[in-house]
Amino acid sequence: MNQTCIRDVSKHVGQEVTIKGWLYNSRSSGKLMFPQIRDGSGIIQGVVFKKNVPERVWSDFEKLTQESSIIVRGNVRADERAPGGFELDVVDVEVVQIAEPFPITPKEHGVEFLMDNRHLWLRSKRQHAILSVRAEVIRAVRDFFDSNGFLLMDTPIFTPAACEGTTTLFEVDYFEDAKAYLTQSGQLYNEATAAAFGKVYCFGPTFRAEKSKTRRHLTEFWMVEPEVAYAELNDVMDLAEQFLTFIVQRVLENRRKELAELERDTSKLEKIAPPFPRLQYDDAVKMLQEAHDKGELEARFEWGGDFGAPDETYLSSQFDRPVMVHRYPTAVKAFYMKPDPERPELAMCVDVLASEGYGEVIGGGQRADDLEYLLKQIHAHGLPEESFDWYLDLRKYGTFPHGGFGMGIERCTTWLCGIEHIRETIPFPRMLYRLKP
Amino acid sequence: MNQTCIRDVSKHVGQEVTIKGWLYNSRSSGKLMFPQIRDGSGIIQGVVFKKNVPERVWSDFEKLTQESSIIVRGNVRADERAPGGFELDVVDVEVVQIAEPFPITPKEHGVEFLMDNRHLWLRSKRQHAILSVRAEVIRAVRDFFDSNGFLLMDTPIFTPAACEGTTTLFEVDYFEDAKAYLTQSGQLYNEATAAAFGKVYCFGPTFRAEKSKTRRHLTEFWMVEPEVAYAELNDVMDLAEQFLTFIVQRVLENRRKELAELERDTSKLEKIAPPFPRLQYDDAVKMLQEAHDKGELEARFEWGGDFGAPDETYLSSQFDRPVMVHRYPTAVKAFYMKPDPERPELAMCVDVLASEGYGEVIGGGQRADDLEYLLKQIHAHGLPEESFDWYLDLRKYGTFPHGGFGMGIERCTTWLCGIEHIRETIPFPRMLYRLKP
Repeated sequence: MNQTCIRDVSKHVGQEVTIKGWLYNSRSSGKLMFPQIRDGSGIIQGVVFKKNVPERVWSDFEKLTQESSIIVRGNVRADERAPGGFELDVVDVEVVQIAEPFPITPKEHGVEFLMDNRHLWLRSKRQHAILSVRAEVIRAVRDFFDSNGFLLMDTPIFTPAACEGTTTLFEVDYFEDAKAYLTQSGQLYNEATAAAFGKVYCFGPTFRAEKSKTRRHLTEFWMVEPEVAYAELNDVMDLAEQFLTFIVQRVLENRRKELAELERDTSKLEKIAPPFPRLQYDDAVKMLQEAHDKGELEARFEWGGDFGAPDETYLSSQFDRPVMVHRYPTAVKAFYMKPDPERPELAMCVDVLASEGYGEVIGGGQRADDLEYLLKQIHAHGLPEESFDWYLDLRKYGTFPHGGFGMGIERCTTWLCGIEHIRETIPFPRMLYRLKP
Repeated sequence: MNQTCIRDVSKHVGQEVTIKGWLYNSRSSGKLMFPQIRDGSGIIQGVVFKKNVPERVWSDFEKLTQESSIIVRGNVRADERAPGGFELDVVDVEVVQIAEPFPITPKEHGVEFLMDNRHLWLRSKRQHAILSVRAEVIRAVRDFFDSNGFLLMDTPIFTPAACEGTTTLFEVDYFEDAKAYLTQSGQLYNEATAAAFGKVYCFGPTFRAEKSKTRRHLTEFWMVEPEVAYAELNDVMDLAEQFLTFIVQRVLENRRKELAELERDTSKLEKIAPPFPRLQYDDAVKMLQEAHDKGELEARFEWGGDFGAPDETYLSSQFDRPVMVHRYPTAVKAFYMKPDPERPELAMCVDVLASEGYGEVIGGGQRADDLEYLLKQIHAHGLPEESFDWYLDLRKYGTFPHGGFGMGIERCTTWLCGIEHIRETIPFPRMLYRLKP
């Protein structure tokens, strides 16, 4: 295609280029017009001099509406005063279509309206920035694992049984009255592939039919889950801090412009480096109780429960980098967690709380590798043993210590972008009352 | 972790290393034992000299069953005669678990038995090779698009309406009596993100509730779909041939060993390079009819239909690289295809047929960008207009020529591995009667 991306105009200074895109915005001062042209890779300001272009070109530009599709020919000029550092001296334009009045204008719109028009809202600078950060996070995730000896092993979306309880499962009719459930985690399958490949990760959409309508929940979200054979809890924590640091560095390296567009305070991200503080649950509880005593937390947290949002916010605000809370009570964690040999009432698990109050981004730990213990747990949790026969096989045929974690892509992106709501971090969010477009 | 991967032993010749894994196989000759040890990254042959090791080590090795988990300490020695080029002179062993008798033995097993034990079958050399090729294909896919200016834009799994007809859709209960359908393609959403980002791709699982039980069908399979703003049919074909060539090259570069394990004739893959032959549907039909006349094809193919498996096999056997068949009759293709301006009865579409009779691996084309035409098509196909309101918006607000394609990861992997059945190319295949493990 005889076409230059706006991203690449710096390589074409002094040359004539053809840009294929849309009119983002335009202002005029009688004899001069400044159309802002976007092509998906960036935005460049055009300069149309009435006296330098044929009359048709001038009148075509006068007719253009926001989002009209155009093919523009012009000369690239470096100009420090221009928004991107370059301007385009327009020579010619081909109007592909004059757009109908675009529903999203610079005025404020309600969130529901924007969500109904998500397919058009995506064209805004802010959504462009957020979703570019998302793509960078995913690229960093893959590069990290691919270059550290992990093999991608996709786990199934259709599963025959619930992994962590049935109340939040989406059910699917699977031929002739069979039922399938949409995966909530690739974890159990990862344990089988780790036994075959040593170091594996899965990466795909996961589903939770949660009726909660909070700014941290999607019904469909993407999760990456590594699993490592012969890894113990400390290895899992080492991996988590290296992994998260790598992602932050990558986003800082490659998405500065986008973070600036979002007015993200990057100084807080720049501080993130290993080691992350490691805080035993017991000590976290003490911190929360002291905070309550000092009047800094409304409710008193009691040992034995899982943290609520205000607790996580408080804990993470005590540190300048993500904090790893480990060894929660076995009772509040999933059935497959390995109990601490020294204190069996604690699970060998870890939650990583992002900094700045963004809460849990990673959850993981070491898995129970003992057949008898797992059987007991499956019964205690009221799970159907026959659904786990293949999983229990992994403890019969060469069981081994192993562990891993899961990270939600959208929660991580929300945090790195420093934004309020998770719904902007995925192109087409799915929530309790949101299935369209 | 104080641990060396078998993949990396070449860097440790003459050194003592610790390997954590499983016993793959073992043979003994009285005073010598040759345990084959696997750790997921590779297999190495150990040498246990009865006179050189403590009695406990010898007797531990005597007790080991297939797939027992072990931690082995030994010295790496280069040895041309050894299968991987290296051997391990065993110094010590720690037995983590003596495995129960492993159900999969070197003897032949039926496919249903192996599929029931997929979680264990994954440990075999053949499955290891196939799934390593799969992971390489996916890595190549991502690298190709990420390094060519495409942005990953995940499209939703839950969709409110059918994209290409309702008969093969999986239905999900989505809160309070609403229904959602599992995506069959990210195509329509890709068109929205291409309008926002120019060059995009989506990559994720897609679902087809097809009741066909063939060696080319899965109900859940992974698909990558690029979409390019301002691309026309020829651009789409250029992209497809560059893309497929890149993947083949990458697999040849990085997965030689695995292809050898599969006894793949790589000479046929080495020939693959642009340009791929481009064959108009009309001419393909002529070739098929001539083949019939010569007695090389049983059934006579008539203009107007879609190709069957024998037709595709015949066509692809006529060329030494994948063949691109373009401009099928509009009537047999999806509603959103752009009609050829010169012959509106033909669609501006392309199918890429893999070489060696592997059939369609890529399908795509240029999309209809005219609002009136699309409306007519939606009515003609009996689709509910209100479900496509957002999609039609894309033709109101700056419509533009654009196109793209979809490639199924499993079909591509089946072809590159040169194997019979698609079920081995995904860790946990889902088919008509297969939902477990």
